[in-house]
Amino acid sequence: MALEAAAYWLLLRGRRRRAREVLFFPSRVTCVEGLLAAAAGPGPTLQCACPLPHGESALGRLVGLLLTTRRSLELCLFAFSSPQLGRAVLLLHRRGVRVRVVTDADYMVLAGSQVGRLRKAGIQVRHDQDEGYMHHKFAIIDKKVVITGSLNWTTQAIQTNRENVLIMEDADCVKVFLAEFEKLWENYNPASYIFFPEEKQVPKKNKCSLAIEKPFNK
Amino acid sequence: MALEAAAYWLLLRGRRRRAREVLFFPSRVTCVEGLLAAAAGPGPTLQCACPLPHGESALGRLVGLLLTTRRSLELCLFAFSSPQLGRAVLLLHRRGVRVRVVTDADYMVLAGSQVGRLRKAGIQVRHDQDEGYMHHKFAIIDKKVVITGSLNWTTQAIQTNRENVLIMEDADCVKVFLAEFEKLWENYNPASYIFFPEEKQVPKKNKCSLAIEKPFNK
Repeated sequence: MALEAAAYWLLLRGRRRRAREVLFFPSRVTCVEGLLAAAAGPGPTLQCACPLPHGESALGRLVGLLLTTRRSLELCLFAFSSPQLGRAVLLLHRRGVRVRVVTDADYMVLAGSQVGRLRKAGIQVRHDQDEGYMHHKFAIIDKKVVITGSLNWTTQAIQTNRENVLIMEDADCVKVFLAEFEKLWENYNPASYIFFPEEKQVPKKNKCSLAIEKPFNK
Repeated sequence: MALEAAAYWLLLRGRRRRAREVLFFPSRVTCVEGLLAAAAGPGPTLQCACPLPHGESALGRLVGLLLTTRRSLELCLFAFSSPQLGRAVLLLHRRGVRVRVVTDADYMVLAGSQVGRLRKAGIQVRHDQDEGYMHHKFAIIDKKVVITGSLNWTTQAIQTNRENVLIMEDADCVKVFLAEFEKLWENYNPASYIFFPEEKQVPKKNKCSLAIEKPFNK
């Protein structure tokens, strides 16, 4: 009863250019080929014949929103394994968008992670070296829109968890989230990485057994 | 360098009664005895002599905000093990606030969880029976303020993780988050609980090894 595709959203526009939108998950996985093809450039309209549903969904809305990026995309994500969202980010990179990723050191190396694909494509990625987790799940589009909430960008979270994503076109919120991103970006500068953990002065982060046995759950 | 108490917040008030505030974590753990004593009722001002710091912090701000609740508090939390936040919720319950909790079935039973304490005190708690996780981390105060973000209400998340919490006094946002809460509240009605998992028709949720070995991480 509770696992139906419960995508539900509301678009709210204030008078002072403050758009807010809330997406709830789980969402059914819909085909995003049409969205990606349209974002890739002019060409014949794609009539995808794959067996996935082709209607609206919270996932489709998130992919569609990402693909509106024109200049810059900051991603600050604990876990990123959704192939659909990964493809959207790669497409933006190829289109010339400046993409920067901050992520968690433990989760970025798991099987299924999109982070390796992004790095191979030339996208800059920085990760924590802290005792705790880099647990944010936010994105900033063109320094104009903040996407935040409980959702890790993983297929399990999208398809099976109860999650929320808040989308805000709000200069004040962008400012504080961007400041947090820039702070982490500097803190996680590779120049300060410690490549030999035995020399670390701080306690080593406990490895997460979940991360090995059942990745991308939280 | 990155584990300092990085509480940082900004209070933004719009013309249309739209207050927004962002808290960033990790936060140092500060003494909240003064806040709790003040909220418990009139009496001599508490001059706590405990060794914890007594200044401001993101945790203190969150506790203080919770303690402003007068009528109703909806909590929709994946993991709840922070003793300070637990005490604040218990105090509200004793003060006559209608507290309702929706949580995740796997995480509510872990050592350190506050959920058992809340139930023993008479607070209504309902939990998921889904394949996925009830992964929300939001609260609604007096049907006027929404608190949401990446933060699980756990000591590890508060003290060591990179997290954000967004606080919004916004009727439109309250409306959609409250609708989500009410939907889950009905879906998780105990009348529909299945107490004998062997009779379940849906696949049993995989137990989370992390939950046993290293609770309250995500």
